[in-house]
Amino acid sequence: MSVPESTWGLASPLSAVPSAVNQCVADYFAASTQEFAAIGPQFAHAISLLREFTVDGGKRVRPMFAWAGIRAGVEGGGGSFDFPFPDATPDPQSLLTAISAMEFIQACALIHDDIIDQSDTRRGSPTTHRRFTAQHREHAWAGESEHYGTSQAILTGDLALAWADDMFGMSGISAQALRASRNPWRAMRTEVIAGQILDVTLEANGSESVEDSLKVIEYKTASYTVARPLHIGAALVGADEAVVSTLRQIGQDIGEAFQLRDDQLGVFGKPEITGKPSGDDLRTGKRTALINQALINLAEGKGVKGGVEKLRNGLGAVDTEEEIDELRGVIVESGAAADIEEWITRRSQRAIETIRGANLGAEITEEMVDVTAKLSDRKY
Amino acid sequence: MSVPESTWGLASPLSAVPSAVNQCVADYFAASTQEFAAIGPQFAHAISLLREFTVDGGKRVRPMFAWAGIRAGVEGGGGSFDFPFPDATPDPQSLLTAISAMEFIQACALIHDDIIDQSDTRRGSPTTHRRFTAQHREHAWAGESEHYGTSQAILTGDLALAWADDMFGMSGISAQALRASRNPWRAMRTEVIAGQILDVTLEANGSESVEDSLKVIEYKTASYTVARPLHIGAALVGADEAVVSTLRQIGQDIGEAFQLRDDQLGVFGKPEITGKPSGDDLRTGKRTALINQALINLAEGKGVKGGVEKLRNGLGAVDTEEEIDELRGVIVESGAAADIEEWITRRSQRAIETIRGANLGAEITEEMVDVTAKLSDRKY
Repeated sequence: MSVPESTWGLASPLSAVPSAVNQCVADYFAASTQEFAAIGPQFAHAISLLREFTVDGGKRVRPMFAWAGIRAGVEGGGGSFDFPFPDATPDPQSLLTAISAMEFIQACALIHDDIIDQSDTRRGSPTTHRRFTAQHREHAWAGESEHYGTSQAILTGDLALAWADDMFGMSGISAQALRASRNPWRAMRTEVIAGQILDVTLEANGSESVEDSLKVIEYKTASYTVARPLHIGAALVGADEAVVSTLRQIGQDIGEAFQLRDDQLGVFGKPEITGKPSGDDLRTGKRTALINQALINLAEGKGVKGGVEKLRNGLGAVDTEEEIDELRGVIVESGAAADIEEWITRRSQRAIETIRGANLGAEITEEMVDVTAKLSDRKY
Repeated sequence: MSVPESTWGLASPLSAVPSAVNQCVADYFAASTQEFAAIGPQFAHAISLLREFTVDGGKRVRPMFAWAGIRAGVEGGGGSFDFPFPDATPDPQSLLTAISAMEFIQACALIHDDIIDQSDTRRGSPTTHRRFTAQHREHAWAGESEHYGTSQAILTGDLALAWADDMFGMSGISAQALRASRNPWRAMRTEVIAGQILDVTLEANGSESVEDSLKVIEYKTASYTVARPLHIGAALVGADEAVVSTLRQIGQDIGEAFQLRDDQLGVFGKPEITGKPSGDDLRTGKRTALINQALINLAEGKGVKGGVEKLRNGLGAVDTEEEIDELRGVIVESGAAADIEEWITRRSQRAIETIRGANLGAEITEEMVDVTAKLSDRKY
């Protein structure tokens, strides 16, 4: 499935992005490993753990939307290749390299999130901090193994964040493309960190506000995963303000629908499909928009009697399949699951209508509609 | 002492850098706080903690050496202002903004280091993670206060690292300056993270190799604090390869002398001068070049009998002034303190000779000689 560099062009489909990004990231690791080999084996070990984590590790959603932004920018107004940048026609390979750099932001976000969430595994493998902890334990080194793991994983995440900027800035894109994409690139990184800071705060202060949980969704998922990648892609090829603004609206809707679907799956999803334990969000007591909406509905007298207490007491406490099923029942009967379903539908339909009305080329329009439908319709 | 923007020029002295950088960083915070105000008070709180930590917080050593690199680049070959960049004469204020961004790298490094070293205070105030921990405790929020503090401080450090790149990339320097400084900017960030990964590893595996401790000094201090800032400064004004190479050599020597002096102060420094407890490195058991050299000398039979065991057992275990004084005696009699003193002298003299022989302008030459002497001669 890998797309050789020579065949990568401005018309390459969204479906070809993941394997092309894999290749780009792998090439970057090969070059960087050699570049910093003189520092020695301890640093090379950290690079190799980051490499295993980053290469072939994900769905490449962010570069995929960035590529959609590039395609939309290029094909906006009927597929024109008449770029507003005088210095050069965008080089497809440089653009691909620039958007692949988003995978390093994601690597940092996940490595640091796993420390924050105290997670043992990610995609079926031990998390980065646990791998360093295991190394410390194996060698029976001095100090606490867990603290060693946390320390090295903090630094490995830092490395990923620094390299994200290096890969983006050294991708070979023109000075104008670099300047045009600076603002959304800054916003993307700032917003995901802000969303995470917000999330950690709300988990601690136990906020039951739906507005708060939607704000986390807005920054941590919608902006970071969809709206800003689309924005960056469009900016990289000099799309005009109107197209950028439309793409950001579309991205916000797609991103929110995507995360709200994730919230549904976190309560109702089957483990064999989600890859997570049944009722995972109920077990961990996560305050999602779904949970907070259920609490509001129950407080208004909808659903089962004493539902507020049942839900509040059950969150983070349930363990057996029976307990989880009972809590699911409380949420469903409160009407919250149906509310969220309606919110998802409203957002994905609005996104699809906006895509169809945006006057983009026929091909990118259909590809974006497809992706939107797939992301918001993921099944239980 | 603050230098108004209008008077900042390419001939501004090194001594004027700290207050000018303070102003730059403060301006950046003012603009960024406003830019991201819509995200809400939780994020604004994290920005304000980062601000308190970063503004007026340090000696601004890195921007100062970067400014020395700029001045050396400009004044190399007799103070010529004949720049190799055709697009524009470097704008002094943009250059100042670009090098001020180094303070954000440093903020990330210190915030994350304080988590790694489990430090309670920095410059007399609670560390960032402890401040978040205190906030959690005050509000009696859910979860562990310490883990909350660590989590938010990881994210605040990430924000600093992301903003370092934003401030540098959006400083207003020319596209050519940006391109020319990309490689050393990448190296600076990668090397400080690598040096820290190396340091954490060596502390865990208890390495007694002087070579290992010199490698940590090379990357974590010399490259990061002196050699790369000089390199970046010179690159920003298009200095030629020969000047860059000379500045990097000078920087490596100054940086190593600076850190070796720090190692001496960590054992022999007076608390009222260092701001740290007496014999701090002996109390914490840090494996510095000084300690490792003492172990080697003692193993070769120099100094007191049974010195190796005394030193090994005392490291990280001594507490009273008497115990610390005894260990100091073991180190002095091993000849290691004199060895390190000789290494410092050799490096600072070599640096000064190279500066004098580099054919730079008379003013920057004298200013750099002054700084070198001051940094390596810091007294006990």
